[in-house]
Amino acid sequence: MTRPIIGRVAPEQWRSTGATAPGQRTVGEPGTARIAVDLLGGDHAPAVVVDGALRAVQDDPSLHLILVGPAEATDAVFAALEPAQRHRITVVLGDSAVRAVAEGRADAVVSAGDTAVTVVSATRALGCWPGVRRPPLAAVLPTATGHLVLLDVGSTVDPDAETLAVHARLGAAYATAVHDVPEPRVGLLTIGTEPGKGDRLRRAMPRRLAGLPRYIGLVEGHDVVLGEAADVVVTDGFTGNVLLKALEASYSRLGGPESTRAAVLLGVKGVVVVCHGAATGADLAGGIAFAADLHRRAAIAAIVTSLSDNPVLTYNEVSHD
Amino acid sequence: MTRPIIGRVAPEQWRSTGATAPGQRTVGEPGTARIAVDLLGGDHAPAVVVDGALRAVQDDPSLHLILVGPAEATDAVFAALEPAQRHRITVVLGDSAVRAVAEGRADAVVSAGDTAVTVVSATRALGCWPGVRRPPLAAVLPTATGHLVLLDVGSTVDPDAETLAVHARLGAAYATAVHDVPEPRVGLLTIGTEPGKGDRLRRAMPRRLAGLPRYIGLVEGHDVVLGEAADVVVTDGFTGNVLLKALEASYSRLGGPESTRAAVLLGVKGVVVVCHGAATGADLAGGIAFAADLHRRAAIAAIVTSLSDNPVLTYNEVSHD
Repeated sequence: MTRPIIGRVAPEQWRSTGATAPGQRTVGEPGTARIAVDLLGGDHAPAVVVDGALRAVQDDPSLHLILVGPAEATDAVFAALEPAQRHRITVVLGDSAVRAVAEGRADAVVSAGDTAVTVVSATRALGCWPGVRRPPLAAVLPTATGHLVLLDVGSTVDPDAETLAVHARLGAAYATAVHDVPEPRVGLLTIGTEPGKGDRLRRAMPRRLAGLPRYIGLVEGHDVVLGEAADVVVTDGFTGNVLLKALEASYSRLGGPESTRAAVLLGVKGVVVVCHGAATGADLAGGIAFAADLHRRAAIAAIVTSLSDNPVLTYNEVSHD
Repeated sequence: MTRPIIGRVAPEQWRSTGATAPGQRTVGEPGTARIAVDLLGGDHAPAVVVDGALRAVQDDPSLHLILVGPAEATDAVFAALEPAQRHRITVVLGDSAVRAVAEGRADAVVSAGDTAVTVVSATRALGCWPGVRRPPLAAVLPTATGHLVLLDVGSTVDPDAETLAVHARLGAAYATAVHDVPEPRVGLLTIGTEPGKGDRLRRAMPRRLAGLPRYIGLVEGHDVVLGEAADVVVTDGFTGNVLLKALEASYSRLGGPESTRAAVLLGVKGVVVVCHGAATGADLAGGIAFAADLHRRAAIAAIVTSLSDNPVLTYNEVSHD
């Protein structure tokens, strides 16, 4: 092992003798997951990222982490790791963990950095599926009866009706592919179930969602907690983010069901998981485990298959470019 | 006492020998509160309204209720009441409980009917304060540290920035007048506290709120649960309604703090309390008790005083007609 070159920032400067190294484009072994993490993502980075990384590799013996950041951070983090940890945690110079996925050096990326920055860099580096212009962030929320998919939780704050309809389809495909729900019930989050309720955006939505196999109509805030009405709840990224953060705080405070405090970006060609800026080490470890699980399930391929197989949710129909 | 005229709907047809009767314009005695309730308001009306009314008069010996509805409902309800209950619960023919307040026959109105209808009829019958064109609904939510005022929770779903700024002032005046907070901290609900976060509406807001004595800036979903950051949280009626219903369900499910599941309409010249359409008898009783409390505190006058006294929140400054 060579000492890192202190102060020199180069995207391909690898910092450990771990499984992956520059030029060595590897394919993940069965079961293994190589997760790239933004070392400076999060309000308390890099300490909280290192904490999360150590927790994650301790919990999962088949995990390899690639921490990506500028030299100042990578030097310190590299020096702080025990030799045994360096075998599982690679520290590399770079400005974006997403690139490691785009270049095939990682199977998924996790970031607690600025959500907008992550979404833009993931969209550019990985590309979107046909028909997707504004990839939504989907969170899995525990409910009284199981769990549901809530999206968007912060990617697109001023969506138009067409964007929300695409998000509904992506959320349904996710529920089918990852939660094994053959025909997920999709509800539109609004403020009353009588026709005509809701704001301008919501009033324009129902006819656009009518083509979904199981569009169950309008749902309300309490339905996101109870979970009896829908498997997928679609809303704009502003309302979804406010609601997600409030419910997480409520569950945390009252000892409610534990949830992974991370969201997955749907519609990009790769596994991208986003944590809150205020994420703790445990939250980041949860986000890393979530990303590894999605990779091992081959979730992206399964979602694309779900979109293709469904007579209404055809892959082409999603396209409206 | 005469038998009601079955099938004839006349606003002034009074159904009991209670304290108030047509032509007898009475002023509430000290301590007493005369609350008008829409008999057909709510998904399970009129049964749920009668249940709520009976609970409310049992809990509060100084309460007089005026249940307002069409003949079919009033006949049945009147017949179902015991003679002792008829002394405290007046059943009257009419199409709107709000009118009883406008005409001085009630001190406050409670409705679990369609929110939009109640807001419009209250605005027309009672009038708004200068500068208020779209009165917001304010809910008091329990938090980890006490309680806070959340508004709007469903009156104005597509507000402009100016409307939201007026709502912030009304919410602050309410916190001062009813919660005895001399300089309430007002936060704008959004999805990240860095400048530039949020949707179009939110990005236009901060400069409009800068004039508040204690505008503390941007708050997030979890701040509505924790309550440490702000005494008043302002948002649009869509987000506020979704958030309120989700948190109520969460608290109810997890045994969290109990809250009055009712909201008060601010900016109209009278006490108007709105319950959810899905309100239970207990919820309606809570709404009635809330309305009675606001009347006994002379809350409306105190809010107007608070707006007038505050050098920034001057009564005239609110006006922008």
